[in-house]
Amino acid sequence: MGEARRIREPSGKLGVLLVGMGAVSTTFIAGVELIKRGLGRPVGSLTQMALMEPGGEDGALRRVKELLPLYRLEDLVFGGWDVLPDDAYEAAVTAGVLEKGHLEAVKEELQRVVPWPAVFERRYVHRIEGTNTKRFGSLREAAELIREDIRRFKRQHALERAVMINCASTEAYLQPDKEAYSSLEAFERALDVSDEAISPAMLYAYAAIKEGVGYANGAPSIAADIPALVELARESGVPVAGKDFKTGQTLIKTIMAPGLKARMLGIEGWYSTNILGNRDGEVLDDPDSLKSKELSKLSVLEWILQPELYPELYGDISHVVKIDYYRPRGDSKEGWDNIDIFGWLGYPMQIKINFLARDSILAAPVVLDLALFVDLAGRAGMGGIQEWLSFYFKSPMTAPGLYPEHDLFIQLMKLKNTLRELRGEEVRRHEIRR
Amino acid sequence: MGEARRIREPSGKLGVLLVGMGAVSTTFIAGVELIKRGLGRPVGSLTQMALMEPGGEDGALRRVKELLPLYRLEDLVFGGWDVLPDDAYEAAVTAGVLEKGHLEAVKEELQRVVPWPAVFERRYVHRIEGTNTKRFGSLREAAELIREDIRRFKRQHALERAVMINCASTEAYLQPDKEAYSSLEAFERALDVSDEAISPAMLYAYAAIKEGVGYANGAPSIAADIPALVELARESGVPVAGKDFKTGQTLIKTIMAPGLKARMLGIEGWYSTNILGNRDGEVLDDPDSLKSKELSKLSVLEWILQPELYPELYGDISHVVKIDYYRPRGDSKEGWDNIDIFGWLGYPMQIKINFLARDSILAAPVVLDLALFVDLAGRAGMGGIQEWLSFYFKSPMTAPGLYPEHDLFIQLMKLKNTLRELRGEEVRRHEIRR
Amino acid sequence: MGEARRIREPSGKLGVLLVGMGAVSTTFIAGVELIKRGLGRPVGSLTQMALMEPGGEDGALRRVKELLPLYRLEDLVFGGWDVLPDDAYEAAVTAGVLEKGHLEAVKEELQRVVPWPAVFERRYVHRIEGTNTKRFGSLREAAELIREDIRRFKRQHALERAVMINCASTEAYLQPDKEAYSSLEAFERALDVSDEAISPAMLYAYAAIKEGVGYANGAPSIAADIPALVELARESGVPVAGKDFKTGQTLIKTIMAPGLKARMLGIEGWYSTNILGNRDGEVLDDPDSLKSKELSKLSVLEWILQPELYPELYGDISHVVKIDYYRPRGDSKEGWDNIDIFGWLGYPMQIKINFLARDSILAAPVVLDLALFVDLAGRAGMGGIQEWLSFYFKSPMTAPGLYPEHDLFIQLMKLKNTLRELRGEEVRRHEIRR
Amino acid sequence: MGEARRIREPSGKLGVLLVGMGAVSTTFIAGVELIKRGLGRPVGSLTQMALMEPGGEDGALRRVKELLPLYRLEDLVFGGWDVLPDDAYEAAVTAGVLEKGHLEAVKEELQRVVPWPAVFERRYVHRIEGTNTKRFGSLREAAELIREDIRRFKRQHALERAVMINCASTEAYLQPDKEAYSSLEAFERALDVSDEAISPAMLYAYAAIKEGVGYANGAPSIAADIPALVELARESGVPVAGKDFKTGQTLIKTIMAPGLKARMLGIEGWYSTNILGNRDGEVLDDPDSLKSKELSKLSVLEWILQPELYPELYGDISHVVKIDYYRPRGDSKEGWDNIDIFGWLGYPMQIKINFLARDSILAAPVVLDLALFVDLAGRAGMGGIQEWLSFYFKSPMTAPGLYPEHDLFIQLMKLKNTLRELRGEEVRRHEIRR
Repeated sequence: MGEARRIREPSGKLGVLLVGMGAVSTTFIAGVELIKRGLGRPVGSLTQMALMEPGGEDGALRRVKELLPLYRLEDLVFGGWDVLPDDAYEAAVTAGVLEKGHLEAVKEELQRVVPWPAVFERRYVHRIEGTNTKRFGSLREAAELIREDIRRFKRQHALERAVMINCASTEAYLQPDKEAYSSLEAFERALDVSDEAISPAMLYAYAAIKEGVGYANGAPSIAADIPALVELARESGVPVAGKDFKTGQTLIKTIMAPGLKARMLGIEGWYSTNILGNRDGEVLDDPDSLKSKELSKLSVLEWILQPELYPELYGDISHVVKIDYYRPRGDSKEGWDNIDIFGWLGYPMQIKINFLARDSILAAPVVLDLALFVDLAGRAGMGGIQEWLSFYFKSPMTAPGLYPEHDLFIQLMKLKNTLRELRGEEVRRHEIRR
Repeated sequence: MGEARRIREPSGKLGVLLVGMGAVSTTFIAGVELIKRGLGRPVGSLTQMALMEPGGEDGALRRVKELLPLYRLEDLVFGGWDVLPDDAYEAAVTAGVLEKGHLEAVKEELQRVVPWPAVFERRYVHRIEGTNTKRFGSLREAAELIREDIRRFKRQHALERAVMINCASTEAYLQPDKEAYSSLEAFERALDVSDEAISPAMLYAYAAIKEGVGYANGAPSIAADIPALVELARESGVPVAGKDFKTGQTLIKTIMAPGLKARMLGIEGWYSTNILGNRDGEVLDDPDSLKSKELSKLSVLEWILQPELYPELYGDISHVVKIDYYRPRGDSKEGWDNIDIFGWLGYPMQIKINFLARDSILAAPVVLDLALFVDLAGRAGMGGIQEWLSFYFKSPMTAPGLYPEHDLFIQLMKLKNTLRELRGEEVRRHEIRR
Repeated sequence: MGEARRIREPSGKLGVLLVGMGAVSTTFIAGVELIKRGLGRPVGSLTQMALMEPGGEDGALRRVKELLPLYRLEDLVFGGWDVLPDDAYEAAVTAGVLEKGHLEAVKEELQRVVPWPAVFERRYVHRIEGTNTKRFGSLREAAELIREDIRRFKRQHALERAVMINCASTEAYLQPDKEAYSSLEAFERALDVSDEAISPAMLYAYAAIKEGVGYANGAPSIAADIPALVELARESGVPVAGKDFKTGQTLIKTIMAPGLKARMLGIEGWYSTNILGNRDGEVLDDPDSLKSKELSKLSVLEWILQPELYPELYGDISHVVKIDYYRPRGDSKEGWDNIDIFGWLGYPMQIKINFLARDSILAAPVVLDLALFVDLAGRAGMGGIQEWLSFYFKSPMTAPGLYPEHDLFIQLMKLKNTLRELRGEEVRRHEIRR
Repeated sequence: MGEARRIREPSGKLGVLLVGMGAVSTTFIAGVELIKRGLGRPVGSLTQMALMEPGGEDGALRRVKELLPLYRLEDLVFGGWDVLPDDAYEAAVTAGVLEKGHLEAVKEELQRVVPWPAVFERRYVHRIEGTNTKRFGSLREAAELIREDIRRFKRQHALERAVMINCASTEAYLQPDKEAYSSLEAFERALDVSDEAISPAMLYAYAAIKEGVGYANGAPSIAADIPALVELARESGVPVAGKDFKTGQTLIKTIMAPGLKARMLGIEGWYSTNILGNRDGEVLDDPDSLKSKELSKLSVLEWILQPELYPELYGDISHVVKIDYYRPRGDSKEGWDNIDIFGWLGYPMQIKINFLARDSILAAPVVLDLALFVDLAGRAGMGGIQEWLSFYFKSPMTAPGLYPEHDLFIQLMKLKNTLRELRGEEVRRHEIRR
C-alpha cells in the first residue's frame, strides 16, 4: 500500500468554461441540471456511475465520485463563449438534441447561461458565420480579452477554481511543426505580430493556462498540443488533456480492434464512413476542417494493432475513413464500418457495424468527467499532459517519446490505476471489470 | 520473480483425438499439414502467432510457442471417431470449407486419418444418421471400447501423451442435476445399468480422463462438466476444459459488451440471430439440440455486465438469441446483432453488427491452442478444471462457487498471467496489449 | 373510352368501424383528426396524396380523391370494439406511437371514441387478457350483439353507410378447410351450436356483411376468406377485402423480388427476421398466432417469382421467415433480410436490408384508403372479393381458381386501372409512374 | 394486332467489338464460351432467360431469344482494344472475377482474343498507364485507325454485321455543351484540329457509327450522347444506346424508389456509399473520373420521384452519392445505402441496404443483351437513340425534349412492348411480370 497523494480539498464552486455553446455544451449543462433535480441519470459518466473497490477497507464497492475528492454536480457553475449570441436554452432548442419536456424543466437555468463574444477567425472555420465576436487589435490583445472573461467570471461567482473544455467546431488543419509553436517565447512573439499560425483554439488554451485553469480539448483542432503550451502547462502546474472526444465510430473501433487482436485474427481492410448533420457536420463538409478530423481518426488502428510486430496480420491494412455531411441526420451521427478480417490459413470474413449514435449524448458525460478529473489533477499538483485521461480521446496527447495508448481497455486500466495511486492504493491487474 | 513451475518436457509425439470428424476437425488437421509445408499461416492461434515479453531477460518479444515447452506442429498425430466412415479428405471435401487447391496439397495426409466407429445415440442428436457406429451392450462396455481405441492409437504411434477435443455436433439438452452425475460412484453405477442420463459426450470424456488424456469440450453438450467427472479429473491429475468454442457471435459479444460497460453506457436490449447451413446447423434445427446451444449463449451478458451492481444500466436487458438453419450459408455462419443502448439522461442509440463468419476457420486455431495448452497443463501437473482457458469458450467451466469470466480481455489477461506463472514470472497489469 | 360505372354519390357521413382499438386504430383516428386540422399530412395514403391523369380532359394531373366520389376526411366518424375499456386517447398514449404534442392536439376527439365490449375468446389469442368483453350464449347470439352495435352506431350518427376494418391482434392458426366454412348454411348451423371452428374474426366479418357493411381484414386471421362468407358477400353485394396489411418487411419483399426478377437474377435463399415489441408482438410470441402470421408471409415469393416457369433461377429457394418478440422495439418493428442471389454463371452475391419501420405509421394510411375504397366499391355495386385492393395486403384474397397477385407494381397498376374503369376511361399501360 | 416490322434475318456471324478488355469484357467472353459448352448459365440475361407470351398463338410462354430473330451465342465472335497487351485469358486471370476452373475450361478460346492497340489519352483517364496504344497524328487519323481495325476484323471473320460495346474505364468529366459537339460538321472539324474536347470514347463511337456498327456505352463517359453523333447515327440508320451499365447500387435504387413512391411514402434523404477495388475503382479514385460517375448516379431519384409533382413527399431530398476506392474489395463492389423515409403525419423511418455485389457478374449479361438487341435494332432499321434499352443504363439516353425513364419496371415494360411491336403484336398492360 503506497501513500495517498496530497490533494487539496474542493472548496466553493467549480467554474466550467465552455468554448462553443452548441449541441454538446448545452446537452451537458441541461443534463447536469436535470440530474441535480432527479430528472435524469448521468449515464456514460465514469465519475458518477462507475464502481471501484477501495483498497484496504471492507472491500465494498463504491462510486468513483465517493472515493475521490471530486466536486459534486451541485457545485458546478457554467460560463462560455460562442459566435452566436443565443443563450443556452435557445442554443439547445436549435441543437434539437434533448426533448422539449427535458428542456422546459430547466429552462431558467439554461437561460441564465449567456455566451460571451467569441474570438473567431473565418479562416479557421469557413462554414460558420459569427455574429457574437470580439473585436481586437493584435492576437495578444485577443488572448487578453479571453483572460479578462475568465477573471470576471471567477469574481462574479467567487470561484477559487475553474476548468475549460473546448467544445467548439473543428478548425482547419494546420501543420503542427510551425516555428511559432516551438517554444513559449516564440508563441508569445507570434501573438504580438498576430501570426496566422495561431488559431483561436490555441488562444483559448493559452488564456486558460495563464489563468491557472485546467484545459481539455474535445475537438481535433490543434490547441494545447504544441510544445509552447505543453511547456507552459507543465511549468505552471496546470493540467492539460486532449484531444477530440472519443464518442462514436472511433469508440467502437477502439473496442473491436483490441478484440480481434486478442484472438490473433488478421485484418485486411477497414472502411469507415460517417454521416452527420449538425453544425459539426456542416463544418466538416469543408475539406480543411475535414482533414483535421480524418487525421485524428486514422492513426487509431496502427497504435492498437502494432503492424511492426505483427506484419503477417496487420502489416497491410487498407484503412479508409470518410465523413459526410448529411442533413437529415441532424445531431445524430451514424457510422457504417466494414471490416475485412481473415482467419486460419488466411480465409476471409467480414464484419459490418452500423452505429446509430447521438453525438452530444455520447459527448456530454465525457465533458463532465473531464471537468471533474482535470480539476482533480490540478488540486493534486499534476501539471502538464494528463495521459491517464486518454480513455476519453480519439488522439490522446502524450509526452514526447511516448506512444499514445488507444486500446480502450488499457486506457481504462490506466485511468483506474491513476485513481488508485491518487488514493495511495496498490494498482491492480484484473481491474478492467468494474 | 517467482519460481517456474516444474513442467515435464514434451517427448515424442502428441496424439490429438478428435470426437467428430466434420468441418472443424478436418479444417484443423488440413491446416496443420498446410502450415507445416509453409502453405498457410496459423492465423487465429495464440500459441503460434502471439508475442509475449519474457520477464527478466532482454525484453525482446518472443512467440508464446517459444516461451513455453509446447509440442510443435510437426509433433502432432491425429485420430478420432465419426458416425460416418469417410476419411478426413472426403469429409473435408463434403464440408466445403477449404479450397480445392488447399485440400489437394495435403490429400495424402488427410486420407490417412480414417475415423473409428463412433458411440452414437440417435436420442441425443436427432438429425444425424450414423452408419459408422459401435455396437455394444452396456454403456460401461461402450466406454471401454473408446478406451481401447485410445490405447491402440497410442501404441500404434508410440505416443506418450494424447489429448481429446470434442468437435462433435451439439447433443440434446439434458438437465444438469441428475443423480447419475452427482459422483463418480453414481456415474459408474449408471454406466452399468445403461442409464439414459449418460450421453455419448460424457462417455468420451470419461474414457479420456480414465486414460489420463486431457479433455477439452468444443460443443455445448454436457460432458466433463458434471461433478462425477470433475472429481475424477482432479483426482487423476488430468486437465479438463470447456465448453463450446467461442467463435462467432458470442466472440463479438464478449468484445462489445466490456467496451460499452467501460464507458458506462446502458443496455436496454440485445437481439442476436444466427444463420448457419452446415451439419452443425442442421443439428441445431432440432429444438432439443438448439436448447443446449441457446442456453450456452445466453448467460454471457449477465456475467460481463453485472446487473446486480449496475441495475440502472443493465438491470432490465431484453436478451434474445436465435439460431436458424439456412441452407445457402453452408459452413459459413452469419450473425446479425441489434443492440439497443442508452446514454446521457437515458437517450437511446442503436448498434447493428453483421458478422459474415466462417465457423471452422474460427474454430480450427482454437482446437490447436487447446490441444497444446491442455497437454501443457497435464505436464505441469495441473489436474481438474482449467479456468485460465476460458478465453476459448462460450460457457467457461469453473470450480463450484466461482463465477465464470466472460470478458474477452480479462480472459486473455488471465491466460497470459497463467503462462507467466508457469514460467515463474511476475504477473503484469498492462498486458492486454500483445 | 368506356362508360363510367354508375356510382351512388356519397351522402351524409361514413362510419368507420374498427375491430381492435390499439396502436393502428388510434394512430389512424388521431391522424385523420390532425390532418383535418392541418396539423399533419396523410403520407402513405394513395387516396389523399397520389396524382392520376384523368382521361379525355386537359390532361392535368389531379388527386385520386378528386377524381372519384370518395368520402372526405371531414365525413368520417369512428366506432369500434376492444377487449380493453380505454378510450382512444388512453389507448393511443399506451401505444406510444404518436408524440405527446400530437395526441394533446386532438385529445377531445379521441376521448369521444370509447370502444364497445368485444367478442373475445382466449382460445384464439392466448397472450391477451380481456376485461371489456361481451357475454353471450351461443355464437349466433354473439354475432347478433355485434350487429346491434353496428345498427346502434348508425342510428346514433344517422349514417347511411359504414365500413369495418379488422385491426385486431392475430388469432391462432386454423385449418382453412373445415366443414363449418364450406357454405353459408353450414356456417350458420355452426353458429347455432357454437362450433369451435368459428373464431371472433369471422363473427365480426359475418356481422358486417349481414348489415351491408363493407369489410376489410388487416390481420392474418381467417375471417371473410372462407367460402361461406365470400358467398354471402357476393350475394349481398357487399365488398370484402383482405388480408393482413402489407406494411413492413413484406412490403419491401414485394418491391425487391420483382426487381431482381426483372433482371433475371437468381435467388438461392431469403432469410427474413423481424423484431417487434408492441401488443401485436406479444401476441405473436405465441406459437399459434405466429403460425398464422408466418404462413401469411411465406407464399409471397413463390407467387412473384414463378419457380415453375424459372426453375433454374427460383426453383430451389430457402425461404425462412422469423418473427420475434423483442420488448425494446415497442411499436416500431424492425426487419433484417438477407438475400442470397446469383448472377452470370451462377456466381453468388448478397443483399442485406435492415428496415427500421413503425408498424402503425405504415398501417394507418392503409386503413384510410381501405375504408374509402371499400365503401366506394359498395356504392359502385361491386360485391364480393375486391381483388384490385391486393396492393394493400400480404395475402391477397382471390376468387377460387385465380392466383393472388403479389408484385407491388402490378398490384398498383390493377388498382389504378380499376379506378379508371370506374370512371369509364380506357386503361393504360405505362401507368405505374404516378 | 399490328403488323410485324420487317427485320432482316441474321446471317453469318455477329462481331462483338469491346472497347476495353478488362474484368467486364473478359467475364462476358468467358461466360459466353462456358455457356456454349453447357458449363454455366446466362443468368441475368433477358434475351437468354426471360419468357414472354407470344400474341395470337396458343399462349405458351417462350424464351425471348426464340420469339425474335436474334443471333445465337454460337454466332458471336469477339474482338476489341485495350491499353494493356494481355490476351483475354491473361486479362481474366488478372481481373480475378471467375474461378480458376472456369477459366481453364475456356483458356484456348480466351487466348485467341488479343486486344488491338488502343487510342488512349492520359488526360482522360489519369490513373492508368497504357503500353498497348496507337500512335497517330491528328484525331481524325486516330478515328481512321479504329475504323481500319473494324474493317479488318470484319474481313477476317467474313462478318456482315458487328456491334461495339464500350466497357472501358470512366473518363474524366467533360462539359457536355462544347461547340465541337454541336453538329457533325463541327465535330469533324474538331477531329482535324485535334481539339481537346474530343475524348477517346467519342472517337470509338464515331468510328463505329461511320462503319455502320451499332454502339452501346457501358461507361458514364460522354460518347455517342452528343448532338453530332446522335445526328450521324440517326442519319446513317445506326442504333446507339447508353449510358453506364445499371448494375449495382443504382439498380437497387431504381427498384426501391418506385416501390416507396407506389405507396406514397416520403423521402427525406438517401445516402449511398460504394466501395470497389478493381481497375474501375482505381480510376474512380481520381476526382475527375469520379465526377462523371457521380453525376451519372445522382439524377436517378429525381426522375423517378417527380418532386415537382410531389413536393411534400420528395421536394427536399438530401441525396448523397459517394464512391471510394478500397483495395480489399477487388472486383466485388459493395454498396451501403441509408434511406430516410417518412410516413403518416411525417413520422420518420429508415431503410439500410447493404449490397455485396460483383461488378462484372452483373455487367456481363448486360453486355450480351445489348449486343444482341442493338444488332436487332439495326436489322429492323431503327437508327439513332434506342430509348427502349434504358432498362440497362444508369443514365438513359433520350431524344431532346423527352425525359429519361429510370423506373426499372416501366423500363422493362417499354422494352417488352418494343419487342412486341417488332413482332407486330399489341402491347400489353400487365406485363411487368414475366
